[in-house]
Amino acid sequence: MRRIIVQKFGGTSVADTEKIKNVAKIVIKEKNNGNNVVVVVSAMGHTTDHLVKMAKELSKTPSGREMDMLLSTGEGISIALLTMAIQAQGYDAVSFNATQAGIYTENVHTKARILKINTEKLQHNLNEGKIIVVAGFQGVTEDGEITTLGRGGSDTSAVALAAALNAERCDIYTDVEGVYTTDPRVVPKASKLKEISYEEMLELAHAGAGVLHPRSVETAKLNNVALRVRSSFKTDDMGTLILGVDKMEIDKPVTGVAADLTQARIVVCDVPDVPGQAAKIFSKLAQENISVDMIIQSYARKVSNTNDIAFTIDSADIDKTEETLNKLKETLHCGEIQINSDIAKVSIVGAGMIDRPGIASAMFETLARLGVNIKMISTSEIKISCLVDKTDANKAVQALHDEFELASDVIADVKGDLPPQ
Amino acid sequence: MRRIIVQKFGGTSVADTEKIKNVAKIVIKEKNNGNNVVVVVSAMGHTTDHLVKMAKELSKTPSGREMDMLLSTGEGISIALLTMAIQAQGYDAVSFNATQAGIYTENVHTKARILKINTEKLQHNLNEGKIIVVAGFQGVTEDGEITTLGRGGSDTSAVALAAALNAERCDIYTDVEGVYTTDPRVVPKASKLKEISYEEMLELAHAGAGVLHPRSVETAKLNNVALRVRSSFKTDDMGTLILGVDKMEIDKPVTGVAADLTQARIVVCDVPDVPGQAAKIFSKLAQENISVDMIIQSYARKVSNTNDIAFTIDSADIDKTEETLNKLKETLHCGEIQINSDIAKVSIVGAGMIDRPGIASAMFETLARLGVNIKMISTSEIKISCLVDKTDANKAVQALHDEFELASDVIADVKGDLPPQ
Repeated sequence: MRRIIVQKFGGTSVADTEKIKNVAKIVIKEKNNGNNVVVVVSAMGHTTDHLVKMAKELSKTPSGREMDMLLSTGEGISIALLTMAIQAQGYDAVSFNATQAGIYTENVHTKARILKINTEKLQHNLNEGKIIVVAGFQGVTEDGEITTLGRGGSDTSAVALAAALNAERCDIYTDVEGVYTTDPRVVPKASKLKEISYEEMLELAHAGAGVLHPRSVETAKLNNVALRVRSSFKTDDMGTLILGVDKMEIDKPVTGVAADLTQARIVVCDVPDVPGQAAKIFSKLAQENISVDMIIQSYARKVSNTNDIAFTIDSADIDKTEETLNKLKETLHCGEIQINSDIAKVSIVGAGMIDRPGIASAMFETLARLGVNIKMISTSEIKISCLVDKTDANKAVQALHDEFELASDVIADVKGDLPPQ
Repeated sequence: MRRIIVQKFGGTSVADTEKIKNVAKIVIKEKNNGNNVVVVVSAMGHTTDHLVKMAKELSKTPSGREMDMLLSTGEGISIALLTMAIQAQGYDAVSFNATQAGIYTENVHTKARILKINTEKLQHNLNEGKIIVVAGFQGVTEDGEITTLGRGGSDTSAVALAAALNAERCDIYTDVEGVYTTDPRVVPKASKLKEISYEEMLELAHAGAGVLHPRSVETAKLNNVALRVRSSFKTDDMGTLILGVDKMEIDKPVTGVAADLTQARIVVCDVPDVPGQAAKIFSKLAQENISVDMIIQSYARKVSNTNDIAFTIDSADIDKTEETLNKLKETLHCGEIQINSDIAKVSIVGAGMIDRPGIASAMFETLARLGVNIKMISTSEIKISCLVDKTDANKAVQALHDEFELASDVIADVKGDLPPQ
């Protein structure tokens, strides 16, 4: 039986018909390697922006259902065009939108999660030797409602398909050459990693590294899908392989540095210190589909017997969060609600920090040396994040990159074949 | 129970977001009349041209299946945007693509016929008070394959929905104000008809009048759907009502004149006069999905015992027809195959000509007076068509329009309510 390779191409890789022809070549090359190929594509270049612009001209608050109907057309265009380009080279290919591919999601609009994929039709077409081109980013509910998966949704589509089809590998083709120790636009000497663990990638993705959406990495980790991030313009470069931490050799405490400038900090002040208050806030936010990242609750003040609850959210959710919290104010008997979107979350990530003490203090000292004020701190086993002023983000990333010697990373520039897994 | 009105808006009516807002107003006005409203829309303005252009850049002969996948995205965009525009005015609305609306077609790409419409979901949403916006032009097969209905497909979608939903009326909104006695671009004094029968409209549509696709008129006739052609920019004008000939008062022998410049004439020369030859030709063409219009077979020549079989096709099918006939040549033992696309079919149409002799001769005399050579003639009960040189088409239409006194048609400029049916 042939191996299945899932390939995913983002919007910049299919931005025009010339680029689509280039993608067709990459697809055919993999097919000629003797593999079955399933291709997942995003909407062409600025299609989504154009559609969103028209929607905004018609409605300030377009309904999620209609936004999903609208945006899903973007991939509808790119799958058909890519399939034509492959067929024009004499290869048998067929395109499927999410409804046809059987990518079922929960019934939530604009950020649905994939529940299951019916692989029967896909497998049948692969068995007939066809290259399959599937629309990324979109799904369908049991009732035939069209949904979209939210930011980075096409990556998730690709990984979920790779898992469902038991694929050999999922290659995420993009306009960067792999995963870097930090954003090369911020730190020019940032270096490319040859491999990184799911866990580190997950923390980097959550920390705003931007290459892959955390959900796609989570899905890969959960299903043990070998994921590779590589360039659709430099196809000889093998990019970065993302795999289980157990399969890696760890030589440094910190693998990467990331900054997330898209968050906002909310502080709910003077919340009476009685049980269940935090639950009230966060269950209500969850109901409204607002994702909360860092959460910090201060010790209760002795005089007033109240505390402050601070957390961060995606800036896009500010209005909805404010509205939700204002409705809760009476129930909570809390004070002022502060909102600050001039903040950045700077993180260092590394599976190697588990066994090495002193990494956190090195990070705090570095920031102190720069005069950067730390507003919130949160940590996980393999990540330390500090909330700082937005204006301090770049210098913080540069200094941390130097501090943890990421630029001299010897595994950075390796080309050629990856070692056997 | 509320009456259902189906409204159809073509590409020019939804060409940009301002025009979509205008359409939303027309829809809401009908809803406020106390009716249930189902809206069928085409792709926005030049969307289809843009998609076709990209397809041609990728493949000279893109597959029908992928063309259907591609083009169906056009209506996907317009239904979502129109629904948002309606919702923005505070009305409950929902968009459905053909798969969701349950518009089932045969499994033929680029020109499928509608087989059935599952109205359950539509009816359920109408009962909830929702305005429904359905994608025109597209369908789905039992297997979930996306099809398109070919030219004028959105009109057919609208009429088929009106029939399936037992709608009170189907309003086809367009950029012209109704059905004219002939093309106003050719004959400036052409006048608008207040009403016309299905049969006449059908002949006019087949004859190239261009306002409505024949298939939509056929569907309306078959299901007795009251069809109205009206302007989406001059909504006070009631346009032209198309209805059963039994419901009309006939006062003139000729209702309209039309020219079709998109046809080509094929002559299969010297076909041996044995039974079954015509069947061989036309069954093969039918298999290839080539529509044949006028067919003329000459009397067998006594010396050679052969005859010529001439017919007209859509110019777009020339290559396919030539290929098909060349393959047949040996089986037929025929001579040369002549192809001429420099021809035009000029027709006069009128339910009133049934009982009035001399109409045909008046037509032939008019053309003779102009020095126009008639290449083929075909007639039906209510239509007479002559094939002429393309360069003669305009003057022929003008002269026939004068000859049958269509410009002075008294019913042409009537505004306001239509008489009760």
